[in-house]
Amino acid sequence: MTVDLALRPSQRLRQAAAPIFHAVLEHPYLKKLAAGTLPRAVFREYVKQDWLYLIEFLRASAAIASRSPDAALMKVLLKRIECLVGMEHHFHHKHADELGLDFSSIDWEMNEANYAYTRHMLWAAHTGSTIEALGAMMPCPCVYIHVGDVLSNGPRRADRMYAEWIEFYGPGPLAERTRQLEAIFDELAARAGPDELARAEKNYVISSRYEWMFWDAPYRGRHWPV
Amino acid sequence: MTVDLALRPSQRLRQAAAPIFHAVLEHPYLKKLAAGTLPRAVFREYVKQDWLYLIEFLRASAAIASRSPDAALMKVLLKRIECLVGMEHHFHHKHADELGLDFSSIDWEMNEANYAYTRHMLWAAHTGSTIEALGAMMPCPCVYIHVGDVLSNGPRRADRMYAEWIEFYGPGPLAERTRQLEAIFDELAARAGPDELARAEKNYVISSRYEWMFWDAPYRGRHWPV
Amino acid sequence: MTVDLALRPSQRLRQAAAPIFHAVLEHPYLKKLAAGTLPRAVFREYVKQDWLYLIEFLRASAAIASRSPDAALMKVLLKRIECLVGMEHHFHHKHADELGLDFSSIDWEMNEANYAYTRHMLWAAHTGSTIEALGAMMPCPCVYIHVGDVLSNGPRRADRMYAEWIEFYGPGPLAERTRQLEAIFDELAARAGPDELARAEKNYVISSRYEWMFWDAPYRGRHWPV
Amino acid sequence: MTVDLALRPSQRLRQAAAPIFHAVLEHPYLKKLAAGTLPRAVFREYVKQDWLYLIEFLRASAAIASRSPDAALMKVLLKRIECLVGMEHHFHHKHADELGLDFSSIDWEMNEANYAYTRHMLWAAHTGSTIEALGAMMPCPCVYIHVGDVLSNGPRRADRMYAEWIEFYGPGPLAERTRQLEAIFDELAARAGPDELARAEKNYVISSRYEWMFWDAPYRGRHWPV
Repeated sequence: MTVDLALRPSQRLRQAAAPIFHAVLEHPYLKKLAAGTLPRAVFREYVKQDWLYLIEFLRASAAIASRSPDAALMKVLLKRIECLVGMEHHFHHKHADELGLDFSSIDWEMNEANYAYTRHMLWAAHTGSTIEALGAMMPCPCVYIHVGDVLSNGPRRADRMYAEWIEFYGPGPLAERTRQLEAIFDELAARAGPDELARAEKNYVISSRYEWMFWDAPYRGRHWPV
Repeated sequence: MTVDLALRPSQRLRQAAAPIFHAVLEHPYLKKLAAGTLPRAVFREYVKQDWLYLIEFLRASAAIASRSPDAALMKVLLKRIECLVGMEHHFHHKHADELGLDFSSIDWEMNEANYAYTRHMLWAAHTGSTIEALGAMMPCPCVYIHVGDVLSNGPRRADRMYAEWIEFYGPGPLAERTRQLEAIFDELAARAGPDELARAEKNYVISSRYEWMFWDAPYRGRHWPV
Repeated sequence: MTVDLALRPSQRLRQAAAPIFHAVLEHPYLKKLAAGTLPRAVFREYVKQDWLYLIEFLRASAAIASRSPDAALMKVLLKRIECLVGMEHHFHHKHADELGLDFSSIDWEMNEANYAYTRHMLWAAHTGSTIEALGAMMPCPCVYIHVGDVLSNGPRRADRMYAEWIEFYGPGPLAERTRQLEAIFDELAARAGPDELARAEKNYVISSRYEWMFWDAPYRGRHWPV
Repeated sequence: MTVDLALRPSQRLRQAAAPIFHAVLEHPYLKKLAAGTLPRAVFREYVKQDWLYLIEFLRASAAIASRSPDAALMKVLLKRIECLVGMEHHFHHKHADELGLDFSSIDWEMNEANYAYTRHMLWAAHTGSTIEALGAMMPCPCVYIHVGDVLSNGPRRADRMYAEWIEFYGPGPLAERTRQLEAIFDELAARAGPDELARAEKNYVISSRYEWMFWDAPYRGRHWPV
């Protein structure tokens, strides 16, 4: 793959993961979600897994903030996670009753894809540099706003809950927040060495793969093979 | 030293550090602060150092939260640090102008005592268990509300700024927050093994020593010996 | 599952993972390896993945050692990894030529199962207590000596290379080293709290699952799904 | 201070710390050690503290190795610490009997300088990049071989034990090992960004200060102020 050096560093990461972002959009889970034909049980399982994921995403974000050598950046990153702590305004919370889920009393466990994805993020957050850790963390918002953008521009959705999910990740504050995160990455990357950037890109590609697997697992009804 | 096993774990820590808490109250820095005779230059240097300290205290707190295996506790700990992120309502911020300090553009460095104290906390926060890390972090609020309690019950202060400092750490919301932190520690300690608790106590005693040194350094005009 | 409290802690972990240990022995990879009918290409892919795994196992072991609060235990754990550093005497090294592999110049990447397994171990090694980290690390030697024990007591192997592999993990120094590791775990566990032990057990079960997947992946020719 | 950009990165660190290296050589501890007039009790206390220091130096070294993203470098760093694990051939071990010290049963604690130094190193080793962590770790060997070099070229020592100490750190294998460590740093630094290098230099200067304090503490009979 040829990489365009004129691109901003965050966009080089996106370019490296472009085939995976494409595969994500082609996955039957998202095709059916957009068409309103995704079985509710599959979506419900996804929401259950995603709740557990978001807790670890919060954990990884706090770790990255705390390990940032720059105090101003640490505060910016901590400010960003404040809205994640309660998740009161989040899609999951709003639809918990309708899906028959009680997030105050979790009685389910992570599936294989979720566990692998979050260990990758936590490993990067606890042992990598800020740049390497952001590389592992950024595909989640980047893939979601990409999906939200493409799907919200597609045909109208038959299913109200799926429509709201698409809207939640479509153009708006979440997309704006993600652009800010990429700007932070670009600023740090401008002062980083090539090995560190290569590791950040590798982490980004791997997290992008896990995004695909995250939807594939509930779609195929996969938990753990053993 | 005999340790009373009937005490709550957090109070056993306090008991182990009691001689140091006593030495803190006897330090001429606090004696003169209470009497209103502490040179403003000494207080100003303390505030400069304390600002740098609070940034690392925030960093350590975020690390402890992110490393807490229990998701509910992680969220509680992250909620607790929200008010630290901006520190807009903090004593330091309120008196910055009067002290001629600009916290938006730091041009001073940590002294030896501050650097040693914060490395101890960060080391505990990044490598210890939640209990061990809380052991290193708790003396800061515990010593301050102890000092605030004793001094606010002493004679009226001649100096307005020092009086406000004493009031800030006296009985009130900060004292209440500290009791909550000790309750968290007690709950965790009830399910911990003896080695882990012994390390938490050691960390607590060492941080208490650093509290004393933190006041001693500006009082003696000490920065680094070399 | 009922857990026998009279068991040593390390054996309670084994008991919790017993169904997975059983599934490992039933996997066609090992059935065919024992029968001498496993395709060499599958075995070669396994050896390639295992080499990358052992590097991360070494990394995790060094992390656990360095984070052990007890200095004597740190030295014991560092002594244990000395023989891993060069791996000159290891099965892989001995058969590299015959398998057409050059370990001095790695040109292959981890598959999904390997990456997930090693992130789990590294996450535990860098963020967990010694006990929790050992929980994640022990299934590797425990499963291998269990497999080595069972297979070396089975019928004679037709294939010389597979016979040597079985012998390498059969009764002998490796089995002895594993018993020592379990004894270390038992000693620490005797002084640990219930939450910490529960996390160690969870880590042990998850690593056992990854052991199964580690053989399943080359057998099915799986790398990454996307 | 003007910094010579033509210098190798490791030598720029030395240049930044040159005034401290100079202060170390001027310290009465080393002046008297060279003259053979240092009280044995002071030297004994130094050896006691140094033994505890070396354990943490080993711990930090293992942490740096385990966190090195490059597998080859991890192995090189682990190879380097093998001789530290037992320390059987070390100066301390050889003179334990004569100094009346039993390293198999430690009944003394770290003094303030030692604790602060080792927390700095461990903090860097567990949270910094390889370069930042090496920055904190390198002053120990660099200062010692500098001292060993200067003192071994000075007048003959009256005291046999002090003469052997000077010889141990004088030109020879230890000096060679230190040059190799600096070469590793230079290789990594050539591919690192400016912020990371600035943090490595800061860590180097702080560890150099701690080297001075490490000799100052036993010389002044300092343990902890409270």
